[in-house]
Amino acid sequence: MPNKTSNKGLENGIDYQAPLQDMAFLLNEVFPPPESETIDQNTEEELFVLKQAARFAEQELATINSECDRQGCQLNDGQVSLPPSMKTAFQKYAQAGWMGLCLPEQWGGQNQSSRLGSFIGELLTSANHAFSMTPALTMSACRALIAYGSDELKQNYLEKMICGQWTGTMCMTEAHCGSDLGLIRTSAIANADGSYQVKGSKIFISAGSHDASDNIIHLVLARLKDSPNSREGIKGLSLFLVPDKSEEDGQWSKDNNVRCIGIEEKMGVHGNPTCSMSFENSQGFLIGEENKGINAMFAMMNEMRLGTSLQGIGLSERSFQKSLNYAQSRTQMRSLSGIKNPELEADPLIVHPDVRRMLLTQKVFAEGGRALAQFCSQLMDETHQENTNKEKQQLLDMLTPIAKGFCTEVGLESASHAIQIHGGHGFIKETGVEQLYRDGRIATLYEGTSGIQALDLLGRKVLGTQGKSLMSFTKMMHVLDKENSHLADDSEIGTLLSSLKNYSKEWPEVTMQIGAKAMKNPDEAGAASFDYMMYSGYIVLGYFWAKMAITARTLLNKQLLDKQILDELPLEGEYSKELLENKIANATFYFDRILPRALSHKLAMLSGNDSLKESF
Amino acid sequence: MPNKTSNKGLENGIDYQAPLQDMAFLLNEVFPPPESETIDQNTEEELFVLKQAARFAEQELATINSECDRQGCQLNDGQVSLPPSMKTAFQKYAQAGWMGLCLPEQWGGQNQSSRLGSFIGELLTSANHAFSMTPALTMSACRALIAYGSDELKQNYLEKMICGQWTGTMCMTEAHCGSDLGLIRTSAIANADGSYQVKGSKIFISAGSHDASDNIIHLVLARLKDSPNSREGIKGLSLFLVPDKSEEDGQWSKDNNVRCIGIEEKMGVHGNPTCSMSFENSQGFLIGEENKGINAMFAMMNEMRLGTSLQGIGLSERSFQKSLNYAQSRTQMRSLSGIKNPELEADPLIVHPDVRRMLLTQKVFAEGGRALAQFCSQLMDETHQENTNKEKQQLLDMLTPIAKGFCTEVGLESASHAIQIHGGHGFIKETGVEQLYRDGRIATLYEGTSGIQALDLLGRKVLGTQGKSLMSFTKMMHVLDKENSHLADDSEIGTLLSSLKNYSKEWPEVTMQIGAKAMKNPDEAGAASFDYMMYSGYIVLGYFWAKMAITARTLLNKQLLDKQILDELPLEGEYSKELLENKIANATFYFDRILPRALSHKLAMLSGNDSLKESF
Repeated sequence: MPNKTSNKGLENGIDYQAPLQDMAFLLNEVFPPPESETIDQNTEEELFVLKQAARFAEQELATINSECDRQGCQLNDGQVSLPPSMKTAFQKYAQAGWMGLCLPEQWGGQNQSSRLGSFIGELLTSANHAFSMTPALTMSACRALIAYGSDELKQNYLEKMICGQWTGTMCMTEAHCGSDLGLIRTSAIANADGSYQVKGSKIFISAGSHDASDNIIHLVLARLKDSPNSREGIKGLSLFLVPDKSEEDGQWSKDNNVRCIGIEEKMGVHGNPTCSMSFENSQGFLIGEENKGINAMFAMMNEMRLGTSLQGIGLSERSFQKSLNYAQSRTQMRSLSGIKNPELEADPLIVHPDVRRMLLTQKVFAEGGRALAQFCSQLMDETHQENTNKEKQQLLDMLTPIAKGFCTEVGLESASHAIQIHGGHGFIKETGVEQLYRDGRIATLYEGTSGIQALDLLGRKVLGTQGKSLMSFTKMMHVLDKENSHLADDSEIGTLLSSLKNYSKEWPEVTMQIGAKAMKNPDEAGAASFDYMMYSGYIVLGYFWAKMAITARTLLNKQLLDKQILDELPLEGEYSKELLENKIANATFYFDRILPRALSHKLAMLSGNDSLKESF
Repeated sequence: MPNKTSNKGLENGIDYQAPLQDMAFLLNEVFPPPESETIDQNTEEELFVLKQAARFAEQELATINSECDRQGCQLNDGQVSLPPSMKTAFQKYAQAGWMGLCLPEQWGGQNQSSRLGSFIGELLTSANHAFSMTPALTMSACRALIAYGSDELKQNYLEKMICGQWTGTMCMTEAHCGSDLGLIRTSAIANADGSYQVKGSKIFISAGSHDASDNIIHLVLARLKDSPNSREGIKGLSLFLVPDKSEEDGQWSKDNNVRCIGIEEKMGVHGNPTCSMSFENSQGFLIGEENKGINAMFAMMNEMRLGTSLQGIGLSERSFQKSLNYAQSRTQMRSLSGIKNPELEADPLIVHPDVRRMLLTQKVFAEGGRALAQFCSQLMDETHQENTNKEKQQLLDMLTPIAKGFCTEVGLESASHAIQIHGGHGFIKETGVEQLYRDGRIATLYEGTSGIQALDLLGRKVLGTQGKSLMSFTKMMHVLDKENSHLADDSEIGTLLSSLKNYSKEWPEVTMQIGAKAMKNPDEAGAASFDYMMYSGYIVLGYFWAKMAITARTLLNKQLLDKQILDELPLEGEYSKELLENKIANATFYFDRILPRALSHKLAMLSGNDSLKESF
């Protein structure tokens, strides 16, 4: 029988419900704050903020998602207008102070942790992918400025960006160069006053021009001209801050010759303009050192990649919610195992095992991905502390391309299942799932395609650390197994642990095999990379599903000892017994139905470069 | 080095090139006409017709594909207008006589074989998915009429439909019933003159109204009212022919109260209107017997399903061609194994193994699918003969849901790879791959979703024949192995054969396991069905790839004996030596990289229904 009271069941008219129970479960039970933590980790306060963000996402963003898609952005006389409701939502967001949530108090921010920021980032993108991009880009620009900018730049720009009066962009891509930043042609010449003249064209600049902020601050990768230090490739690139409007006599209104010369017609994300920008000897200010722009850019990029992983997770979550709602209410055919709802002319879709297979697939990708992203954001909080533990940094570095690459790839699958569950109606605009499918498709492309993530993972992060990062993760797998040896006889948990144990041995083994081949021929790394990333992603999610199931089982076992204990859980019923039971059932589904995919990826990647001939 | 002379490389400005070499190879070498064939099987004539169809697809259809997408269809005052270029293309198509290609000469057709029709169907859909739907639906309607219609109906309608002056539709779906035809509410009442009054609303009617033909002939599933024979469910349905305009005084201009009351806003296929139709006591004529409409509908549907498989294959082919062209011309990054094109500022994308992985994946799905579809269409030709061999019919029945379900599912994957290979540019309308991704998405939904195909395959076609249909196919696998035992030591072919041998044993075994479980609980069939279909599809394509590779090897071996023989091949160089060598390399890719997926589907399907709990 469809469970209409499920926390995931949508009420009439409400199109998105923030997964607060699951987030509370992760924050309180699966990844409780480490005792060594120094920043404010009061989870009650965090949950309070989270609830406010949830309300904003549900009421202000999810509700306008389809409207923004239909209306799109307009370019007139060099000025882009957003869909009116998008403009209003952004202004509300800025005024409520959300932009500075995880940024320093010194500049007007609220200095919250990434672990909170990660959840909130997911809520925004689930509710409205197009909306979420501008805040994410602005926050990343602020972080680059904080890490690499001069005091003067910080003082001039940070406060206004953090309060959302101004927004930021990231200007890397040019028409002839996407993944290959070394080909950048945009140039910069030093002025006598220490500033630079930036000249060139950039494409694919999200929110490069729009009408929801007073000024737009572009971080532009460019090549210093006539500089004795300038070099070819990415090592000759510098990062410049180039405002749309610059300061003159205390007023920020001077035209800085930054032009939006076109916006793209694209498949989705219509609520966010993708701009072609022209810098016509615009005044720019160096961020960091000359010719070391790529370092500052990578610092931004890693964070953007984790942010993009949230888009994959949010896509799975929203696809799941819409699909579950439809599967519970749409009646079609009778259950193969006998009529389930005799009072109806047909049974609801959810009685069909194949429909549940698709729903569960979406659910395990959303919740498993969420656990991975939460773990990464806690690592980010920890590595932001002084005395950074190198092992933790390496682990975060390795998990970042997995989170980005894997979670966005499976996000596309979730969106496709949403269409499939809706049948022909999924192809029609009205149900909204086709928008998810279109909008989400960008996530495996920008901030480095899946192919780029895969090369980064295998080449730089795993083989490049002689496997140390990988060993950090497999150590966690061993620890999970050891710490829970008392559950080895539990019929469900025992199976998960023993499967995980095999993978913790196999993963380093196959890595060594590929590494050995790649030493002889680097193309072997390229040939294995994508399947390696997917293989790794399935195992990593397996770890987090096992960890969630063990946590749930442990809590349920306590309840067996004391029937009252659920009422006494830290959050007084923030999550239900049903959530705990579902965690175990969902983990079993993951290990039975999804994790076996690792096997075919393993066979594919071990088959090597030989069969990838140019035989076209 | 990119091979610009490849037969798949697109010349400047040409956006689609019909894969004629591959088709000639299949027609002449892989599936030469059986000697017992009675219908005209002159392959030279067939190839001549094929080339003409290729020219039409390349020059008249591919060129307008993007324009039709942008313009879409308009509904004004109950009349739908097509994009002007679509209307022109359809009229040219009809005037050239293509509509009747595979229909009887008696009614103005050309009586060509399905084996030719299958190729041409692929060309049309590759070039322009939206275009191809109207001819396909019209031809299916004609076939239903030929098989089940009265002589009077045939005489009144067939000729005009076959010459393309009139078009046809298939009216099944209603707002509350998609897969579940038993819920149909559209009703019919018998008139005194032997005709019927049809009343009700249908949705999702492709080309239900348009301005490229003088009349539209709807085949409508409806429920006889007040008839003693009428029953609930699909057994109470009858099929009616309902024309838009009916005959009066020798003129076909009488309004029959058929109204288009809306067209859908949808994700893709914008060049073909998806209509909501209202029949307001329209006059209809029974096709076949009362209450047996579903039989005639299924006869149409099986053919439509094979037709839809071509959409998946065409999608893979077009995605491949556009991707290969881009990968050969777009330069980005250097090869990991050293600079390949020092004269360029970066190497073309095709030097990257991961890009080739995606290209080869598209290619093996296109060409493997084409071989499967060609085999099915030859079976169709054979089963249309008198004295139909029951075994062949069962085999065709089993392969139909695999062709439809599997080829459309992997078609979506091919289109997604096309976007990925294009990077950010793939998300932009300009490159055209995002249209492929949107248009193609319908193919796993209509004519029965993939879930419906999967249930049909496992339940009706395999378990329902006690596995006889499956044994027909595994027998073919054994025969291929035996007949080519002399190639067992060939390093490439030997590997394929031995892998195939294992699958020929495993497939019936796992089927029996699932069958045994399904006897106890029918939900076990539902739980296994989708993975079973994909598992079967990967094996079936493996068989056809092995068969193609063996054929190629045999031809190449002959060449070793006589260097001149390639010039003496039946088609005087219709296919090149390169094609033969590529076939073997591509088969190896398929077995190394793609076929291993069967393993994860096997594990998933054998895990059963237990983990598909309603744990949401």
